[in-house]
Amino acid sequence: MAPPFRFSESTRTLIRLALHEDLSLGDVTTDAIFGPDDHTVARFIAKEPLVVAGLPVVEEVMREVDADAAFAWHVGDGASVERGTFGVLRGRVGSLLRAERTMLNFMRHLSGVATVTRRYVDALGSDGPALVDTRKTTPGFRELEKYAVRLGGGRNHRYNLGSGGMIKNNHISAAGSIAQAVAKVRDHAPFLTRIEVEVANLDELQQALDAGADAVLLDNMTTAQMREACALVAGRALVEASGNITLARLPELRGIGLDFVSCGAITHSAPNVDISLTFDRP
Amino acid sequence: MAPPFRFSESTRTLIRLALHEDLSLGDVTTDAIFGPDDHTVARFIAKEPLVVAGLPVVEEVMREVDADAAFAWHVGDGASVERGTFGVLRGRVGSLLRAERTMLNFMRHLSGVATVTRRYVDALGSDGPALVDTRKTTPGFRELEKYAVRLGGGRNHRYNLGSGGMIKNNHISAAGSIAQAVAKVRDHAPFLTRIEVEVANLDELQQALDAGADAVLLDNMTTAQMREACALVAGRALVEASGNITLARLPELRGIGLDFVSCGAITHSAPNVDISLTFDRP
Amino acid sequence: MAPPFRFSESTRTLIRLALHEDLSLGDVTTDAIFGPDDHTVARFIAKEPLVVAGLPVVEEVMREVDADAAFAWHVGDGASVERGTFGVLRGRVGSLLRAERTMLNFMRHLSGVATVTRRYVDALGSDGPALVDTRKTTPGFRELEKYAVRLGGGRNHRYNLGSGGMIKNNHISAAGSIAQAVAKVRDHAPFLTRIEVEVANLDELQQALDAGADAVLLDNMTTAQMREACALVAGRALVEASGNITLARLPELRGIGLDFVSCGAITHSAPNVDISLTFDRP
Amino acid sequence: MAPPFRFSESTRTLIRLALHEDLSLGDVTTDAIFGPDDHTVARFIAKEPLVVAGLPVVEEVMREVDADAAFAWHVGDGASVERGTFGVLRGRVGSLLRAERTMLNFMRHLSGVATVTRRYVDALGSDGPALVDTRKTTPGFRELEKYAVRLGGGRNHRYNLGSGGMIKNNHISAAGSIAQAVAKVRDHAPFLTRIEVEVANLDELQQALDAGADAVLLDNMTTAQMREACALVAGRALVEASGNITLARLPELRGIGLDFVSCGAITHSAPNVDISLTFDRP
Amino acid sequence: MAPPFRFSESTRTLIRLALHEDLSLGDVTTDAIFGPDDHTVARFIAKEPLVVAGLPVVEEVMREVDADAAFAWHVGDGASVERGTFGVLRGRVGSLLRAERTMLNFMRHLSGVATVTRRYVDALGSDGPALVDTRKTTPGFRELEKYAVRLGGGRNHRYNLGSGGMIKNNHISAAGSIAQAVAKVRDHAPFLTRIEVEVANLDELQQALDAGADAVLLDNMTTAQMREACALVAGRALVEASGNITLARLPELRGIGLDFVSCGAITHSAPNVDISLTFDRP
Amino acid sequence: MAPPFRFSESTRTLIRLALHEDLSLGDVTTDAIFGPDDHTVARFIAKEPLVVAGLPVVEEVMREVDADAAFAWHVGDGASVERGTFGVLRGRVGSLLRAERTMLNFMRHLSGVATVTRRYVDALGSDGPALVDTRKTTPGFRELEKYAVRLGGGRNHRYNLGSGGMIKNNHISAAGSIAQAVAKVRDHAPFLTRIEVEVANLDELQQALDAGADAVLLDNMTTAQMREACALVAGRALVEASGNITLARLPELRGIGLDFVSCGAITHSAPNVDISLTFDRP
Repeated sequence: MAPPFRFSESTRTLIRLALHEDLSLGDVTTDAIFGPDDHTVARFIAKEPLVVAGLPVVEEVMREVDADAAFAWHVGDGASVERGTFGVLRGRVGSLLRAERTMLNFMRHLSGVATVTRRYVDALGSDGPALVDTRKTTPGFRELEKYAVRLGGGRNHRYNLGSGGMIKNNHISAAGSIAQAVAKVRDHAPFLTRIEVEVANLDELQQALDAGADAVLLDNMTTAQMREACALVAGRALVEASGNITLARLPELRGIGLDFVSCGAITHSAPNVDISLTFDRP
Repeated sequence: MAPPFRFSESTRTLIRLALHEDLSLGDVTTDAIFGPDDHTVARFIAKEPLVVAGLPVVEEVMREVDADAAFAWHVGDGASVERGTFGVLRGRVGSLLRAERTMLNFMRHLSGVATVTRRYVDALGSDGPALVDTRKTTPGFRELEKYAVRLGGGRNHRYNLGSGGMIKNNHISAAGSIAQAVAKVRDHAPFLTRIEVEVANLDELQQALDAGADAVLLDNMTTAQMREACALVAGRALVEASGNITLARLPELRGIGLDFVSCGAITHSAPNVDISLTFDRP
Repeated sequence: MAPPFRFSESTRTLIRLALHEDLSLGDVTTDAIFGPDDHTVARFIAKEPLVVAGLPVVEEVMREVDADAAFAWHVGDGASVERGTFGVLRGRVGSLLRAERTMLNFMRHLSGVATVTRRYVDALGSDGPALVDTRKTTPGFRELEKYAVRLGGGRNHRYNLGSGGMIKNNHISAAGSIAQAVAKVRDHAPFLTRIEVEVANLDELQQALDAGADAVLLDNMTTAQMREACALVAGRALVEASGNITLARLPELRGIGLDFVSCGAITHSAPNVDISLTFDRP
Repeated sequence: MAPPFRFSESTRTLIRLALHEDLSLGDVTTDAIFGPDDHTVARFIAKEPLVVAGLPVVEEVMREVDADAAFAWHVGDGASVERGTFGVLRGRVGSLLRAERTMLNFMRHLSGVATVTRRYVDALGSDGPALVDTRKTTPGFRELEKYAVRLGGGRNHRYNLGSGGMIKNNHISAAGSIAQAVAKVRDHAPFLTRIEVEVANLDELQQALDAGADAVLLDNMTTAQMREACALVAGRALVEASGNITLARLPELRGIGLDFVSCGAITHSAPNVDISLTFDRP
Repeated sequence: MAPPFRFSESTRTLIRLALHEDLSLGDVTTDAIFGPDDHTVARFIAKEPLVVAGLPVVEEVMREVDADAAFAWHVGDGASVERGTFGVLRGRVGSLLRAERTMLNFMRHLSGVATVTRRYVDALGSDGPALVDTRKTTPGFRELEKYAVRLGGGRNHRYNLGSGGMIKNNHISAAGSIAQAVAKVRDHAPFLTRIEVEVANLDELQQALDAGADAVLLDNMTTAQMREACALVAGRALVEASGNITLARLPELRGIGLDFVSCGAITHSAPNVDISLTFDRP
Repeated sequence: MAPPFRFSESTRTLIRLALHEDLSLGDVTTDAIFGPDDHTVARFIAKEPLVVAGLPVVEEVMREVDADAAFAWHVGDGASVERGTFGVLRGRVGSLLRAERTMLNFMRHLSGVATVTRRYVDALGSDGPALVDTRKTTPGFRELEKYAVRLGGGRNHRYNLGSGGMIKNNHISAAGSIAQAVAKVRDHAPFLTRIEVEVANLDELQQALDAGADAVLLDNMTTAQMREACALVAGRALVEASGNITLARLPELRGIGLDFVSCGAITHSAPNVDISLTFDRP
């Protein structure tokens, strides 16, 4: 697949697993009817307005089944499309039928994530805090869903447990204090890694600031509490709001000083969008 | 993991991918603070009523991280639980924190599938058609989501392209007729495999019956059309309704002669249910 | 490889295992003598009449070693050939020598399966029962051997434990009766899956028919018993004969009402056929 | 598995492939009927005299499915058994049924190889040349079949293309002469690797001896020619006979000076021996 | 393996590769001589003073070969040892001999990294800048070598290309300016990721500071230049010195304001330390 | 990659592991700045005289990231180069930056091995004993390091535990005598495998010769002892010197009758050579 999006080995393995679970026993219907010389054209059709996400995955799925099939996309990943055709696929009928379900399953899910993200991002407005994702992703889809979030206009929180420090209650209790927890993680983590502290009230927030935290997560606070917290931070750390973040609530989170609003639902509960692959009649 | 549920090699690979994407760089917070002798107890808590699904997956995730951790479940897979604790986990703090997110991501999704399925099944009633899933599953999750559907009281449609014959428009066009398509698939497929024909109207339905189809899929028909179709079939084939199946519509699909109602949303768009893992204070 | 035969990921892994076991330490003879510019032509020669099977596997093996090598086949998979050349391979000497043994080991075995199958199929005649394979396949070769059986003119029994229901003594004892066993499997299995019951006598056969079994396996019956059983079934189920099936016995199994005759020896005990790869003299 | 036989990673992968191909969709019959508390006892029964081979593989297969099952073997690998029970297996019914076919498919094939090998070895006699295998093994089974050959009393030829030098016509043509071919391989190969030259007549044999070959392969010679060749060698190199080696011909190959007789049929065409797993009635 | 050090799936694959390359053909010497009942005791002996690193790897290697072998370590990972025994291993002779070389190859390399790191760390002194590693690690050993660096007292630079932003000349040219490069990466990268800019002179340094870089890498500067650079930074960013870092030069890098000194040689060119495994005489 | 060097599956896995550890989270810097249409030219530059090794690995790494990139090498593997450019790489900037570190990490290490080997080989002279490597290789790099040793002019000792017999003290004690150990291994090992015996003094040497050992390893002997040992052997076996082999000592090992001098440091402790990849300014 062409850069800039290159899959990690893990994602390539996921793609192979997905094909294997559908094709491990062949395709008893298609194999019985189509020969290698039967070719066709099929169209990717959006049945509702959506943000397209996952074209490179779709191409990789198809290539794994039959490298001779060819795509012509009308738009690129991240584009908003209304109802209608947004891509054309040409190749052997048998190959397209074998890859169809897996291509759609990936694309409908990833476009669903991008579409929901775009809706949240729009609700936050261009001058509000940035929407960020979480680690509440579908198992095996971390790379793909974070990519879809970026396509939807969101930003990424830490990729995983090793690429950012996040100090929670358990860590604070064990370390003895917020200050000691920050110091320990600062000493252990690679130095290009920022450290965030989860706080539930202004007292903990003050401790986190005193400890030199790079960022603070305001956990399940009311909007009023968040406003007060942002005032206390006054630019000394990045501020993230988390917990009970719904689409309806986003507008009130604008303009109170937050840097980030994080939301797990955009990845773990985004419904599929409706995309179909329609084959031309011979 | 104890029988009767044994993961396939594919699912075990998915579990390892999921852990790897979260732990490939270690856990810079937890590794800095907890030593191997710090132990704790944590509780799985349902924050809303739900159908539990995925306990063996959760156990496998934990075991991959630290085989010494021990579970005590209050219920089994498939149980309906109200809000509250339904399981306890004991082990090293560091190990539990490393496995926490991956365990929850699996369990919240699979329980989401089971919970939605249960709701659909209840709406169909005990004497109505059976609810069945589709191949519209999250890529890599075919085995797990079909398992969750069964836990929710649904039944499974064919596992994949090789474990059932499904004749659609493309196949019929290429074969020349429904009769020829059925004959070709009958000859090619393993003989314990049933053959289903997708039909859009009564004429196609009659052809499918004449061709000896084992099952027919009524595609996007109105309820009235389905009733007529079932009367025509008169027990000569299994009858499945598909397309535009929503929770609200299910009651009207009872008692009209359908054997199965299939729905993709129960797997591809089931939102996560809210389950958390709460650590005891030391 | 070109459709319609596409390997599953498992078979591709088997091919890599096979190459690795022969090449994990390089080829100390060939590596010492041939450079990358030495090219040659080699011929696949049948040393006895046989049914060709495995050309896509041979191509995949060669491609894994050196994608520049090119094949020209005189026949396709499933063709009967007499003694003589049936394919030509052009490429680097070193690459051909490294791939030679693995290509031949696959092709000689798969062609062996197809050749034996053809012999059995011919003995059953065009109007007799169909020959079907079993799950008694060489471990790792399920997909390939079932493919070879089809090439030889046989049909496939269920692919694996999940793609067909097969009720045996153990299941019946545990379920309490044939009727209960069938009901339980019917309820559990995907609905496009047929259910077969293994029976040893007419009484069990009657129970299986009453339970609505889709197929019955007549286990180790005499030809007379089978004839009687087929009469009892009278088209209400598919009938398979199994046990003590030898080439010599096949003619007497024609015309007594059987649908299928299954035989494990065509996969697990088919001797290699004699195929060699002969290199042209420079 | 207990030493001294430890599988390579490749063989462990083969075992997982074999289980996966049979269990990728679960076991729709057994899963419907047996629960995790149903236990049983099953017996491995030889239905004909045979040499047992593959017990560690059988154990590994079972352990992959359910580590709680326990074996009690009456004999060890390599033992000759008459008809009857030679091992007992205790465990969950569901697990035993899921592993049964894969265990038997491995054991029946490997015992088949060992049994045929023993027959050839016996025909050569205790003071005759040693029987050795070839690289004509079932793809993926190199390690296991060479192990089975040793259990049958045979010896192993080189494991693969890298663990022994074997100079054939192509190499000689390219190198210019037998002497130059031997020199090149001697220089390239690890120094603990012996070099064998395939010869078709006494002239080539003399050249191989002059070149300092460690071993010579007499290719498709008559017994008389071999006798003459052995006399010429006179202990200066190991002598292997190959080509057209049948069981009937073995006696005449004794006492003519050969060190080794190699035969591909003992691995690639050994028929399965008849072993069954019989479950105790409850 | 016991926490706190848990291998990633990648490292476990590396361990299996390492065992496989040594054992893919068995151990023809040991297999010929030792049976499963031969047990022994062996001692890990430091033949020179060193910092121990890799005990969990050694244990994992041994467990892969034979899970029954048992270790008794006198010290833990990271300990400095003088010449002499620092661990004892008990188990089957055959298993210990099969695992010996792979265990030592891992341990001698990782302890070499830790030992060299400790020497560098000591030369920088307790109040000097911290020693950090680089991405110049042995391919496949990223996790293990970074672990060994920590055991030696060093700190880790970013784990990989995704866990820290590092802006170099190519990025600046393409983005148009340091400011634009920093802005683009800031917008794209997960927000817990710091951004470092590589600078070659004070002008670039000033631009990096103005752009809000979190850290700056002083590339190949003289000690005097670095001193001046640190004065300019004045705590507004972390400062790393890189290029031409030798053990001899380290003392002069103390007390000039640097936060970090990075060195690739501690991972890519650390010589093995001398550790042997000595078997007790029977 | 073009023959004659074809990677084993294991080495291909190592290459993927190496890329994955650097790219599992993408490249947050490069991904932010470069698009798929940005192309560049980069040059491989030797910063010191060295023997080039690893070009096929470098090509494979690049191809895994982006198959469109193209190499133009000025020299081949094994060439000695002075300071300066020895290869050019053209392709997408983003792809080259993503592959850069992994390409260099492989090439700098393998060229380091080849360069050190060349130095040792030169010190032994053209008529001295051959330099051979050992099994003391970097885990996972057996194939690649042995290839680099050959490029440096050295020869290979046995590839692994299965491709050569090596009898040490433990084996002799267990077998009862050198004679019995040799006999047992002779009987067990594939017949193209030579057997070497490690000896510490002339008495053991005599026993090894009497036992018919193919080679003897003189363990940690003085040069005088080795001279005496070689005289005793008198061509009846190959003679290898091992232990305390340093560059300085090599000249005195010439002309005393040794066939091989083995040295582990050329693989396990060869420092990286200095190679950089310099990008052309746009």
